[in-house]
Amino acid sequence: MIICKVVGNVVSTRKHEQLVGSKLLIVEPLSSSGDRPMVAVDNVGAGVGETVLVAVGGAARVAMGKREAPIDAAVVGIVDNADSLQL
Amino acid sequence: MIICKVVGNVVSTRKHEQLVGSKLLIVEPLSSSGDRPMVAVDNVGAGVGETVLVAVGGAARVAMGKREAPIDAAVVGIVDNADSLQL
Amino acid sequence: MIICKVVGNVVSTRKHEQLVGSKLLIVEPLSSSGDRPMVAVDNVGAGVGETVLVAVGGAARVAMGKREAPIDAAVVGIVDNADSLQL
Amino acid sequence: MIICKVVGNVVSTRKHEQLVGSKLLIVEPLSSSGDRPMVAVDNVGAGVGETVLVAVGGAARVAMGKREAPIDAAVVGIVDNADSLQL
Amino acid sequence: MIICKVVGNVVSTRKHEQLVGSKLLIVEPLSSSGDRPMVAVDNVGAGVGETVLVAVGGAARVAMGKREAPIDAAVVGIVDNADSLQL
Repeated sequence: MIICKVVGNVVSTRKHEQLVGSKLLIVEPLSSSGDRPMVAVDNVGAGVGETVLVAVGGAARVAMGKREAPIDAAVVGIVDNADSLQL
Repeated sequence: MIICKVVGNVVSTRKHEQLVGSKLLIVEPLSSSGDRPMVAVDNVGAGVGETVLVAVGGAARVAMGKREAPIDAAVVGIVDNADSLQL
Repeated sequence: MIICKVVGNVVSTRKHEQLVGSKLLIVEPLSSSGDRPMVAVDNVGAGVGETVLVAVGGAARVAMGKREAPIDAAVVGIVDNADSLQL
Repeated sequence: MIICKVVGNVVSTRKHEQLVGSKLLIVEPLSSSGDRPMVAVDNVGAGVGETVLVAVGGAARVAMGKREAPIDAAVVGIVDNADSLQL
Repeated sequence: MIICKVVGNVVSTRKHEQLVGSKLLIVEPLSSSGDRPMVAVDNVGAGVGETVLVAVGGAARVAMGKREAPIDAAVVGIVDNADSLQL
C-alpha cells in the first residue's frame, strides 16, 4: 500500500455506472520523487488533509467488495502514525 | 484512477478482433513528471480536450465488460471538477 | 495500451515451453521520458519499424488466448495514425 | 520481488476490516533511484532494520492467504545474503 | 517481458513456505534509466552473467505453475540474441 495525503475531491457527473455513489478522492503519494496524484475510491471515510493508506490494482476492487467496478485505487486506512516518515 | 486529458485518437486497421469497434483515445496524465501518453478505450463518450478518469489494469477490462478483450486502460469518467488540481 | 515502435527481435532457444513458437519483439515506448524497451509477443504480424499498440499485464495473456503462458506484454494492433503524436 | 529494508511501522486505527490484526511495515526499496517507501503486510516476522523480500500485486494476496484482503504488498522473506548488492 | 542480466543470488533462510526450494536470482533490467534490480524466481536454469527474459506480475505465477506462491517475477527464457540491444 502507499501512504498518501488526501488533497482534494473529484466531481464527475458522467461516469461508469459502477462508480455512481462512490466518493472519489485525489491522493498524493508521500514521496520525495514527485509521484503524480491519483484518484482513489474512499472506503474508510477519509477527508482532505488526512494521511491514508491506498491499495492499488486488484486489491482496490477487493477493498470495495465490488469486483465489477472499474476501480484501481482505494483508500483502506487512516494513518495515525508512521514512525519513520514525516507526515 | 488517473486524471488525464484526451489529446487525440488512434486509428488502427489491423488489430486484435476484440478491439474492433472500440474507440481508442490517446490520454496524457495530468502530472508534473512527464508521464508518457497512453491509449485507453472509451467507455463514456469522451472527446479530445476533455479531462477524464482513466482506470488501468484489470479494472479496465471490468469497465468495458469484456473480460476477453486485451484492454489495460479505459476512460471511466469525465471530470467536471477536481478541486486541488489545475485542469 | 502503450504506443511503441518495434525495434528488433529476440532469439531465445531455452525458454518456457508455453513461449515456444511465439514471435518475441523488442518494442520501445514512444515517450519523451526514456522508458526502457520491453519484449512483447506478437499477435498481429508486426515487423521492425512499425508503430504498434502494446497491451500489458493480464490483458496480454487475454490477447494471446493463452492463460497458461507467462506473457505480460503483447502487440495487439498496428497504428495507422495517432493524430497528436509524432510517429 | 523487491529487496527492501524495513524502516518503520504504521499505526492505523481506522482501517479496512480485512486489515485488522495485520502488522503493517514501512519498507524502502534498495535502489539508487530514490523509489518511494511503501507499506507491506508482514508474513515472516520481520522487524525494523532487516532486509526483506517484498512481493507486490496479486502475489501479495496469495502470500497472506487472504484473497479478500486489500493487500498489494507483503513481506515474504528475510534476506540473509544477496551477493551482488550492498545491504 | 523485460530483458535483464542476472547479477547475483539471494539467500533467504526464513521465507514463505511456497518459496522453499525456489532459486532466487537478482536481475537488473537492461536499460539506460537506472531501473532498480529485482528478485526473480528461476524457471529455466539461468546463471549469473546470463541475459534473460523476465515475466512480471500474474505472468510470473503462471510461469512457475504455482498459483499459490507469492511470486511476482520469473525468469522465463535465456536470450541468445536481441538484435537492437547491446547485451
